[in-house]
Amino acid sequence: MTDGVDVEWVAGQLERAVVLADPSLSPELTGGLEEFTGRPLGEGTGPVVHVGPTLPAEFRAGRRSAGDGSEGSDRLMWVHSTNAGVDGMLGDVSPWPEGVLLTRTVGRMGERIGQYVLAWALADCQDVRGFLRQHASRTWRRLPTELAEGRRAVIFGTGSIGAAVAAALRCCGIRTTGVARTPREAPGFDEVFALEAPELTEALGQAHWVVNALPLTPATTGLFGPRLLSAMNGATFVNVGRGESVQTEALAKALETGDVGGAVLDVLPDEPAPPDSPLWDLPNTVITSHSAGITTPTDVLTDFRTAWHALRSGQRPALSVQLGLGY
Amino acid sequence: MTDGVDVEWVAGQLERAVVLADPSLSPELTGGLEEFTGRPLGEGTGPVVHVGPTLPAEFRAGRRSAGDGSEGSDRLMWVHSTNAGVDGMLGDVSPWPEGVLLTRTVGRMGERIGQYVLAWALADCQDVRGFLRQHASRTWRRLPTELAEGRRAVIFGTGSIGAAVAAALRCCGIRTTGVARTPREAPGFDEVFALEAPELTEALGQAHWVVNALPLTPATTGLFGPRLLSAMNGATFVNVGRGESVQTEALAKALETGDVGGAVLDVLPDEPAPPDSPLWDLPNTVITSHSAGITTPTDVLTDFRTAWHALRSGQRPALSVQLGLGY
Repeated sequence: MTDGVDVEWVAGQLERAVVLADPSLSPELTGGLEEFTGRPLGEGTGPVVHVGPTLPAEFRAGRRSAGDGSEGSDRLMWVHSTNAGVDGMLGDVSPWPEGVLLTRTVGRMGERIGQYVLAWALADCQDVRGFLRQHASRTWRRLPTELAEGRRAVIFGTGSIGAAVAAALRCCGIRTTGVARTPREAPGFDEVFALEAPELTEALGQAHWVVNALPLTPATTGLFGPRLLSAMNGATFVNVGRGESVQTEALAKALETGDVGGAVLDVLPDEPAPPDSPLWDLPNTVITSHSAGITTPTDVLTDFRTAWHALRSGQRPALSVQLGLGY
Repeated sequence: MTDGVDVEWVAGQLERAVVLADPSLSPELTGGLEEFTGRPLGEGTGPVVHVGPTLPAEFRAGRRSAGDGSEGSDRLMWVHSTNAGVDGMLGDVSPWPEGVLLTRTVGRMGERIGQYVLAWALADCQDVRGFLRQHASRTWRRLPTELAEGRRAVIFGTGSIGAAVAAALRCCGIRTTGVARTPREAPGFDEVFALEAPELTEALGQAHWVVNALPLTPATTGLFGPRLLSAMNGATFVNVGRGESVQTEALAKALETGDVGGAVLDVLPDEPAPPDSPLWDLPNTVITSHSAGITTPTDVLTDFRTAWHALRSGQRPALSVQLGLGY
């Protein structure tokens, strides 16, 4: 699936484009956009560049779609997502309008998520939760702590997020196994297996941590089901991808049997989780409220500027979304 | 103060020395000692090599001291401490008997303590405690998380432990300031100040973490008092050195005023802390029961073997304790 974007045409429209910002954006961000583009938001005579986490209703499917020949401010030309995950954006607007460029903000998300995973992995090694419990009950008792070195992490996803997770873990000597849709070279990992590789089962059995860093796509929906979860041997499952990639009932069962030793869930199928959600009752689990890979206003501006400069020099921005893949 | 050890004489006695082990040592360790020295524990006709965390009463000051001309199994010649900190050992036996070699186990203690400090530093950045609290109350709410990069840690102690702490923190981009008794070069740190340097006050004010990695000596007893603690500006104080280096009342006060934002205390002046100890009530503090720098039987054997080989080749072991310094 291609988005039919005509980079040269987009580049030629930038000078007179109308820049719109979602009402939820901070003054720091909207001010930065005005300063960088040299125009007040909403002013101009050309096609629209929209910056935000979602697409306004008036630009959704069937309305003001591209390719109608118009080149004025009723035509959408480029959407810059303030988030890295665009599954929500694409779900709202299906099919994505022909000819409209979609870019996303990655920012320092990789480093942030990498450090999140490292923090929770080291919390395992140092039994941070055990010591906090002991402290609460005024108990002084030595608990075993372990060096992370030599332990194994299996990381689903070998793109920028997965690679950043691997980099963070490797700095503490953790051995990293990447899992990719298709076999590939990924120099930041100690080894990479395809999703269907027979070696993956053994790797999951040896892993102290199994990390989901995959985007949500049809291929990754429900990926973590009985087959993968039962191959684990007490690993902590860390989800920094999307909640819908996990079959919740299968995870609950694996936590009960001990196949999965614990879970750190930054993402859930439904967010926010209400107080009566059964997810709060999963054994040895902590939910971190989608806080691992935040994007700051600086991140959004930096990635928007980079995409703008790429377009101006006639190149497709590196952070363009490939519609067929969903990221 | 010198220990008056005659390395050549010790080396010459090793072949017939009696090796003794503290009753608390594990079978893995005592078996390893017998295998390495090639003799059952307690057998032999020469002077005594004792391995353990403390010195048996019969060898303490005033009894069977060295220098009495005896060379048989009633003469103590070498004590190998199974711990890195020998303040307890030296406190029990004062003055240390002339001519008796004291070596210690460092093992992978530096790496272990470094990873402990990194784990608790990242737990700050990722608000691990906040998310655990939220989870306990079934609350889904984003909490700010921060990259560690660019934050500053001031590490008291630039020896092997302090350097390992710096190495662990630097792998996440944390800027490290070492503090040494005297000005010195310490290549593993971004900068090093002497304890009396005026720049130290500013560094403490900017620090997110202040780490005590100093051994306990007369010079470090009570070091962390009102002067140093009030120079902090909300830093988390991490103590992996010795509890007696901290003035407990001053720390309590600094935690109440917020000069110290929180504390992670692996060591206390009195261990174990009883349930009614007021230390459990310090604000925003966690006590980790002297678990950061454990030594394993493998560590003890490795360092004992290295010291033995050094002696055999006529050299003073690198892990000999300098009595004047206490480490």
